[in-house]
Amino acid sequence: MTGETPKRVDMEKIVSLCRRRGFIFPSSEIYGGLSSCWDYGPLGVELKRNIKEAWWQAEVQQRDDVVGLDTSILMHPRVWEASGHIKGFADPLVECKRCHLRWRADDLNSDKCPTCGGELTEPRQFNLMFKTFMGPVEEKASTIYLRPETAQGMFVNFQNVTNTTRKKLPFGIAQIGKSFRNEITTGNFVFRSREFEQMEIEFFVKPGTDEEWFNYWTEERLNWYVKLGIKKENLKLRPHTRDELAHYARACYDIDYLFPMGWAELEGIANRGDFDLVQHASLSGKTIDYFDDETKERFVPYIIEPSAGVDRSLLAFLCDAYDEEPDKEEIRVVLRFHPGIAPIKVAVLPLSRKEQPVALAREIYADLRQQWSVTYDIAQSIGRRYRRQDEIGTPFCVTVDFQSLEDNQVTIRERDTMNQIRVPISELKTTLQAKLKGEELFVLPPGGKIWKEER
Amino acid sequence: MTGETPKRVDMEKIVSLCRRRGFIFPSSEIYGGLSSCWDYGPLGVELKRNIKEAWWQAEVQQRDDVVGLDTSILMHPRVWEASGHIKGFADPLVECKRCHLRWRADDLNSDKCPTCGGELTEPRQFNLMFKTFMGPVEEKASTIYLRPETAQGMFVNFQNVTNTTRKKLPFGIAQIGKSFRNEITTGNFVFRSREFEQMEIEFFVKPGTDEEWFNYWTEERLNWYVKLGIKKENLKLRPHTRDELAHYARACYDIDYLFPMGWAELEGIANRGDFDLVQHASLSGKTIDYFDDETKERFVPYIIEPSAGVDRSLLAFLCDAYDEEPDKEEIRVVLRFHPGIAPIKVAVLPLSRKEQPVALAREIYADLRQQWSVTYDIAQSIGRRYRRQDEIGTPFCVTVDFQSLEDNQVTIRERDTMNQIRVPISELKTTLQAKLKGEELFVLPPGGKIWKEER
Repeated sequence: MTGETPKRVDMEKIVSLCRRRGFIFPSSEIYGGLSSCWDYGPLGVELKRNIKEAWWQAEVQQRDDVVGLDTSILMHPRVWEASGHIKGFADPLVECKRCHLRWRADDLNSDKCPTCGGELTEPRQFNLMFKTFMGPVEEKASTIYLRPETAQGMFVNFQNVTNTTRKKLPFGIAQIGKSFRNEITTGNFVFRSREFEQMEIEFFVKPGTDEEWFNYWTEERLNWYVKLGIKKENLKLRPHTRDELAHYARACYDIDYLFPMGWAELEGIANRGDFDLVQHASLSGKTIDYFDDETKERFVPYIIEPSAGVDRSLLAFLCDAYDEEPDKEEIRVVLRFHPGIAPIKVAVLPLSRKEQPVALAREIYADLRQQWSVTYDIAQSIGRRYRRQDEIGTPFCVTVDFQSLEDNQVTIRERDTMNQIRVPISELKTTLQAKLKGEELFVLPPGGKIWKEER
Repeated sequence: MTGETPKRVDMEKIVSLCRRRGFIFPSSEIYGGLSSCWDYGPLGVELKRNIKEAWWQAEVQQRDDVVGLDTSILMHPRVWEASGHIKGFADPLVECKRCHLRWRADDLNSDKCPTCGGELTEPRQFNLMFKTFMGPVEEKASTIYLRPETAQGMFVNFQNVTNTTRKKLPFGIAQIGKSFRNEITTGNFVFRSREFEQMEIEFFVKPGTDEEWFNYWTEERLNWYVKLGIKKENLKLRPHTRDELAHYARACYDIDYLFPMGWAELEGIANRGDFDLVQHASLSGKTIDYFDDETKERFVPYIIEPSAGVDRSLLAFLCDAYDEEPDKEEIRVVLRFHPGIAPIKVAVLPLSRKEQPVALAREIYADLRQQWSVTYDIAQSIGRRYRRQDEIGTPFCVTVDFQSLEDNQVTIRERDTMNQIRVPISELKTTLQAKLKGEELFVLPPGGKIWKEER
């Protein structure tokens, strides 16, 4: 990380590209939209699926020590008593309009944010959680909340998981799912919205080994972004100061990304200590602990939590991939996605609309589609079609021409270099496989060197 | 379909297996659970992922004429005015305790259900939708709803999708996501819960071709279940009678499955006509229609909607796979999952705890895991370990013994037949690949014969 500020893309360009090409639309747009809610379009949903799948592959499937979970959004209200969400957010709050930190109004002596000096909102009686009513009657007894984080679903299932999987410490539980926060200040496109998707890991360790695992997960998560193509110079580790630490946390790192609006949190890694399990044991009256077969000790595990946002990751991948370069009289817009997350891997483009090349192109298309997400495009000039694929980040185009009918060869055109190579159709799949090797990226090399953040 | 009732599994056995082996837990269990909400455990989440992925592969990725979408759960309240959900469910309702149909109390002359004669609940002022409040103040103006179906997100984006993808009719939009209904009567495990996940397709066609496409999708969806292993005799098509049709529907089929509690809806396929697009055009004041380049006609498309439930499908796959057979003195419990949806494809089991066979087993495990979801188990006798894998539906076990160190061969044991074969380690991956060919199941053979439901 150098002192210089790297080049940033304009947010308006990202929003406009997303709108124009079907990555992201405002939710309920025909009705004027719903504040800070977003719909993922045909390309956006594939990008999002690829990001979630890459995370699941790296953090669950390819690991021995993490299992998955998928818990419900609606939970018992006492969960939020134990977690501190009901009490912690029921006070009159002011929020800093600049850094979005919230303060209890009665704790403040000034009308400027104690952290950054920003302007504060008026105090409001405000709970971060969306409330709703379960059952046929709308009354206090039936008030429940939409979860503001997926984490609690994993804490309350700790004993269920150890009982059914027989996992030994250290091990983790991972979950991808929607959460809801009735934020006062939203904005910056999908960066801060009221409905969002999380990818969270709760990693349970023996107290005393928590610092080591906290560092391990910080590195592991930084590397995940780097391996999927995020530029190192756009990432920064920011340790929380003691004043800034949440009530449950012993230590916390933010992985910040250089978004168009500046450095902002992409993921948080927290050492939560035994706070959560102790709280839930206390409120539920159930025993929640761990018995170590080898040392014959019984104790409450500490928890290391890497908590990432799907929508924020997606925005970071979009911003990081966005590039413009002069191309003759025009500007070529390219999304330089890592092949592993590109919504479409290959576009098949016949150079003629005549029957024979079209038939061959469709045959190749049908064959490739069994393995990858592939598109077929016959409209307009080949130049225009290349530009369309560049703009949505398709790594490779395969063109089929009249010569292909004679020599059984096709052309592969690479997005990043615009280089073209001619390959026999019989070797097309294996050639693409090698070029798309990003598909196999998520296997950690045993004992492999892990990139260390310098500060 | 014969007149005889096929063998049914006991629901309690399914619930107990799910609890014991970590497929499904009651939500917030340590706090006594939250009525009819469920958490998917380590095996359940993988099963669910496989089902959703199989659907997405078959209905989006492998098709030319369907694109995906992922719209937000929170939508503009006018969406629910247009759809009829606000008005349609704001009346005093009674519900049949047997068939769960709801009736407006003031429309009824009897106190028994007009359809099945079942007992009715007391009338209640009841809206099916969960309501919540967006923004900092809890007031009428900020009331919004959790979506009761994913469908509307696709209707309101119809024009966004045609504009950005240039898709021509007939084409579809597909979505997987959570929906919420404040059901009066819940139950039967995950069959009817208040928070559930849907897999819906909205297929847009030219009016006049709708009947043909309605039939096409009915067959396609029936076949999807059959190809993934559901027994034909446990599936039944049930056309809705004219009285039973929803206000938006021109025709509707239920795909019923023989659940432990009897025949019940697994998926609905509806011909919604132009109801939805006309309603949204009318309430939003926006033009929503389609221009046919070839015929130069402008019209509002009709919609065919195959609407499936993820949780119901999962329950059907579990019930259908469940089997018991006598095995010496005991009962062998087997989940005969199709390999494509089995949570774990292969288990690697060393026959000895000695260093060398364990090292070889772990090497094989690490290698296979790069391709599939694989587990490794060294605890207890090999018989017990086989039973554990049978009970969670793992199609293949690979055992490593001392002889493996000499002849470089391992044993593959098949779940269904319990047959064992010996293969060279160098051929293990390709042998398993062939045996797990279910992975490639979802490619429709061009011109292939489609199973036709007989009634």
